[in-house]
Amino acid sequence: MSGGAPKPAPLETIQLTEDGLTSEQGALLPNATIGMIGGGQLGRMLASSAARLGYRVVVLEPSTGCPAAQLANEHLAAPYDDPEALDRLADLCDVVTYEFENVPLSAARYLEAKVPLFPPSRALEVSQDRLTEKTFLRENGIEVAPFEPVENASDIRAALKAFDGGVLKTRRFGYDGKGQHVFDAADGDVEAALTQIGTGPYVLEKKVAFSSEFSVIAARDRKGNVRSFDPATNEHEGGILRRSTVPAQLSDEQADEAGRIATRILDALDYVGVLGVEFFQAGDRLLVNEIAPRVHNSGHWTHEACETSQFEQHIRAICGLPLGSVSRHHDCSMSNLLGHEADTIADLLDDPSVQVTLYGKAEARAGRKMGHYVQLLALAR
Amino acid sequence: MSGGAPKPAPLETIQLTEDGLTSEQGALLPNATIGMIGGGQLGRMLASSAARLGYRVVVLEPSTGCPAAQLANEHLAAPYDDPEALDRLADLCDVVTYEFENVPLSAARYLEAKVPLFPPSRALEVSQDRLTEKTFLRENGIEVAPFEPVENASDIRAALKAFDGGVLKTRRFGYDGKGQHVFDAADGDVEAALTQIGTGPYVLEKKVAFSSEFSVIAARDRKGNVRSFDPATNEHEGGILRRSTVPAQLSDEQADEAGRIATRILDALDYVGVLGVEFFQAGDRLLVNEIAPRVHNSGHWTHEACETSQFEQHIRAICGLPLGSVSRHHDCSMSNLLGHEADTIADLLDDPSVQVTLYGKAEARAGRKMGHYVQLLALAR
Repeated sequence: MSGGAPKPAPLETIQLTEDGLTSEQGALLPNATIGMIGGGQLGRMLASSAARLGYRVVVLEPSTGCPAAQLANEHLAAPYDDPEALDRLADLCDVVTYEFENVPLSAARYLEAKVPLFPPSRALEVSQDRLTEKTFLRENGIEVAPFEPVENASDIRAALKAFDGGVLKTRRFGYDGKGQHVFDAADGDVEAALTQIGTGPYVLEKKVAFSSEFSVIAARDRKGNVRSFDPATNEHEGGILRRSTVPAQLSDEQADEAGRIATRILDALDYVGVLGVEFFQAGDRLLVNEIAPRVHNSGHWTHEACETSQFEQHIRAICGLPLGSVSRHHDCSMSNLLGHEADTIADLLDDPSVQVTLYGKAEARAGRKMGHYVQLLALAR
Repeated sequence: MSGGAPKPAPLETIQLTEDGLTSEQGALLPNATIGMIGGGQLGRMLASSAARLGYRVVVLEPSTGCPAAQLANEHLAAPYDDPEALDRLADLCDVVTYEFENVPLSAARYLEAKVPLFPPSRALEVSQDRLTEKTFLRENGIEVAPFEPVENASDIRAALKAFDGGVLKTRRFGYDGKGQHVFDAADGDVEAALTQIGTGPYVLEKKVAFSSEFSVIAARDRKGNVRSFDPATNEHEGGILRRSTVPAQLSDEQADEAGRIATRILDALDYVGVLGVEFFQAGDRLLVNEIAPRVHNSGHWTHEACETSQFEQHIRAICGLPLGSVSRHHDCSMSNLLGHEADTIADLLDDPSVQVTLYGKAEARAGRKMGHYVQLLALAR
């Protein structure tokens, strides 16, 4: 499957057309090509939005038959850091983006020297390492849970004592609760925890007595404009997001403050695209738990309940189009469909207020995210 | 690009799963495969909705790089009546549908003997020939403009005299105003008209003094349930749809009557899927102009302004899922983007009430449908 269309002008040399598309506007013309590193469900939903806006998509992802490649114009089935595949991606594409935060930093920087890459590689660098991330947030005046970098059992015991327990996390490659161990007190079995969560280095975080977890999905365009979707309250089960509910259980002041924090992060990173920011609400205080330089599971509801989805917003931002309205027309909740739960689609759709999105994954392993559904509740006030 | 997923059970032998999907319900399971005859923009938007519901799509279309194949799992690049391609389609797919009404009837019937085909081939048979179509409508008690089958200049002159002018149309393969000639009076140049519109046979229709043109998009599921979207008023330029506006310029009674007419057509054809019905409003009378056994250009606004789009509705119907809500949350207008108009996407999107959909066509020929945009107006009352 290949488009065979003539390759449009690259980003910086858009021609003035008879219809008034100007280089000043700097938007990619229809049929321009977006490179997507990563082939999961986030890439699939981004590819669908890109196609709607008339862009072509090339996916770089080693797994064949991956969710995103099913909706892409071309699939480069190669490792994310394969030099030949990266050259091909840069050659085929007018802009490159990614759908997961563990893109090898070397690959991102290599691409960035050849083709516009959004979000910038700095966003990967910051978010790939929990120590770098927390340090960056703190340096930008954003509150995070107290933390200590730790490398071995002796470091950990000292920090556990100082924090009276805590959450031990690998600095890199954690997701969906993996690479984490909770110590309820200072005297836990450190060796057992290290065996369970894998090799370090680590950070130990003081446990935060939070009243809720929530997230803000925000976008920044190439001119520095920022728009934030309404915050969503998130519920996790076994470390995996189970449900996001909008509006969040926050006061208007807290929701505004969370939007301002997201904006500060976007500006500090000179960010272009959509960013997910996960928060703890601890009484009156808002602490940032972590950031994700991509569209986010807790923002899927924007597709059904907002005028613009987080996926289209990301594509607009990286392609130089104006950001869309984040106006929300419904209260709603989004629930993930794990494993064989997705097989119940016909039952779910019996409820006319429910909309289902599935990811095209061939194998429904237990706990695997196979899809999600959004239930529209009242019209937004 | 190929999924590599195990082929799910065919439509009639769905297994009872542990999650309660029953053969009684008869819905296709996630990862089932839909065959799509035709690769244009309607197929592209159907493929996008199919993917969202977790289905795989195989497109049969001779043109490489066509709009639909860009979003499909597999593309069979062969003529619509290629026996090998039809066998392959039947073998790969759990259900087959189409996105244009000129699918060779022999191909549809061949497929229908091997695999569920929706809408049924009878819908193609009726709609491919204007004489068959008008006769079918009249036999079902639905008013159409007076018409006469005509084969040669002498027939035509006689009919022109009887109707005091009229619209000469080829019985087959007309679209977007092609294959038509308007005679304002009985004494027009018949030979010139025949040269212009191509070979017959033809029908001559009496000119209807209509106050507006409008359409109804309706769906019927495999159990016979019908849901109709609100009618849209349509404006044409040079025979091509320019704009559809909702709500239509009709009384509530006329809108209800149009829905009843659509239902009568669906039931008479034992139809499954989405049907477009084009009407003339002539004072108090509603005349059917033509029917299209597929999603319809004048229904694109349902994607932005209704809880379920016509595309998802069609996929739900043919896959045995419950029909979605046709509730409309916004008044709106949909405008086609012809030729290079699609290059103005960045300007169009500067208006936050506008949403743009492009079709991924490589070449922007004058008058070619390259995309459309929907402008959301007030919230629906």
